[in-house]
Amino acid sequence: MEPVAHDVTHVDHQKLIRFVSLSFERLGVPGPDAAIAAHALVTADLRGVDTHGVIRFNPHSWYVKWLREGSMTAKPNIRIIAESDSGALIDGDGGIGMVLGHWAMQLAIRKARESGVAMVGVRNSRHFGMSAYYAMMALDHEMIGISMTNASRQVVPTFGREARFGTNPICFAAPAGEALPFVLDMATTTAAAGKLEIAARLGKAIPRGWALDENAEATVDPRVAQKARRLLSLGGTREGGGHKGYGLAILVEILCGVLTGTITALNTVQEPRGHFFGAIRIDSFRSVNEFKSDMDRLIRELKSTPPIAGQERVYVAGEIEFETARQRAAEGIPLHHSVFKGLREVSELLAVPCDLT
Amino acid sequence: MEPVAHDVTHVDHQKLIRFVSLSFERLGVPGPDAAIAAHALVTADLRGVDTHGVIRFNPHSWYVKWLREGSMTAKPNIRIIAESDSGALIDGDGGIGMVLGHWAMQLAIRKARESGVAMVGVRNSRHFGMSAYYAMMALDHEMIGISMTNASRQVVPTFGREARFGTNPICFAAPAGEALPFVLDMATTTAAAGKLEIAARLGKAIPRGWALDENAEATVDPRVAQKARRLLSLGGTREGGGHKGYGLAILVEILCGVLTGTITALNTVQEPRGHFFGAIRIDSFRSVNEFKSDMDRLIRELKSTPPIAGQERVYVAGEIEFETARQRAAEGIPLHHSVFKGLREVSELLAVPCDLT
Repeated sequence: MEPVAHDVTHVDHQKLIRFVSLSFERLGVPGPDAAIAAHALVTADLRGVDTHGVIRFNPHSWYVKWLREGSMTAKPNIRIIAESDSGALIDGDGGIGMVLGHWAMQLAIRKARESGVAMVGVRNSRHFGMSAYYAMMALDHEMIGISMTNASRQVVPTFGREARFGTNPICFAAPAGEALPFVLDMATTTAAAGKLEIAARLGKAIPRGWALDENAEATVDPRVAQKARRLLSLGGTREGGGHKGYGLAILVEILCGVLTGTITALNTVQEPRGHFFGAIRIDSFRSVNEFKSDMDRLIRELKSTPPIAGQERVYVAGEIEFETARQRAAEGIPLHHSVFKGLREVSELLAVPCDLT
Repeated sequence: MEPVAHDVTHVDHQKLIRFVSLSFERLGVPGPDAAIAAHALVTADLRGVDTHGVIRFNPHSWYVKWLREGSMTAKPNIRIIAESDSGALIDGDGGIGMVLGHWAMQLAIRKARESGVAMVGVRNSRHFGMSAYYAMMALDHEMIGISMTNASRQVVPTFGREARFGTNPICFAAPAGEALPFVLDMATTTAAAGKLEIAARLGKAIPRGWALDENAEATVDPRVAQKARRLLSLGGTREGGGHKGYGLAILVEILCGVLTGTITALNTVQEPRGHFFGAIRIDSFRSVNEFKSDMDRLIRELKSTPPIAGQERVYVAGEIEFETARQRAAEGIPLHHSVFKGLREVSELLAVPCDLT
């Protein structure tokens, strides 16, 4: 899925963070918040999650557009509207999802340090980028991290003709010792919505089981699928277990939407969004050393599985993203020319120098 | 999948609970524990989860066999070996999974009442039957319930030739107002292992994407699949998102196995098992009335989806099981003659009267 080489420019991730951060500041976002939002976005690009990074950082879509038109709050009044020893509900005042997500996950970590386990919900937020960013914040604190968000309606329930809920991702991160941390970050659909975009751009067919057309029939054309907005839940058909993916998406909607008061499944407009974060302090259950050494044993066991014909190895969740991040930190992030063009437009619009290579 | 009528005997669920409870007592289980274990098992049969009910209650398999041979502890010394305000780790001393699960979930509920959110892990347990039983305990307390367990190795990682972990189910239950509660109870495989058993008994083929044969090739023969013990994760192939089901199974193994110290993915024998339970007190986030009224709105919205051709309606997780339970409570639980025969054998063995109809 990597774009071919002549279509890309390699950019330095540190320079990219500074550029995005400064641009957020020019849009009225306070310095520390701008730095967090920029770091979250570029971390997605660094990890190869190109659909959730600076592809959205241009004058025509999402963050820049919303801040300019005032539909996203640059200086939100973040309030704790309910709180217990191990939980809290935050009102995000329509602020940047990455800022609110970071704020809420920090609160979950702080509460878990005191009480052992904590969960924090966020209402009135906006798109928060890549889920893994927040769950992974727990790793530095010897905690397990959980993050979820609801999303705009584009998935059909099992046996349904029309979309009723979003791709509602689940992320779960757990530290290991010698091995890389386990980081699962998955949309509850067969494929993330961004995969249709990439297939459409490359002119490739999508597999059956990913999406339906406007008549609720299976389609392999990514452009038809993008237009119809009728994705299938993980599992695809009923026979393939699609009702389980559907159930997981509603689990996410209950935690991010019903428990917070921001249900996207009931909205025909895309925003606002609700999020849900969790932190589990490992040593409130077991010593961190024992936990990490067992994580290493588990991961070794999984990676020791002999591969099927045509495959070289068995992976563990997060492994490919860590390898990509290492490579891109060294060699630069390959940005598709259309993405790079968007950054240049931001540069001109906000008079922020665009020195990224 | 319902067995044909002449193959079944309809039994009264109250009488069945008393019979199973008394049998557990004859096997040395204390009265209150016996009643809990019996209620949990028969609740599975009542809800139509026939693979996790009294199908296992015969002298040749699981509970009765293990208690008689002493490999499962009738009077376990249950100990809290780690505890915080919102979490705990329990050592189950090899007791009956249903008794330990009930004990641990009660503790989670008690802790969530105090602190808002709580999670409890169990090590050294045995098979705990149907996951939904424990998560649903939260419903009576205006809480969201979560339950998970690891299971014996019979699932292959994506791209792998050999099994490395179990069907590791996830259950999540949330109360509603007028609507039925949302109860998702899913193995993280395309199909639960018990579905192979049912297909084999009925002589039916299984869909591709459920399981591999001993050469790690796709098979549609349930007997070949049962022998090979190489189930596929939810999503099936990589293209269908099988790496997500694989990731979810490992999430469950990390919480039930690594965090507790009872990892089944590293065992070639079936036992012991680890479990993980969670309780979220709704009113520590939002008023229970608001939550329930939004649950009703969400469920109405999902059920309002127009169905695709050939289907009559769109379901919400748990709905079919509630309808089945209502019907079976009124008309009796239809037990396959082989299951009924097993109960009669227990009756003779333990001299417990078997008056069930």
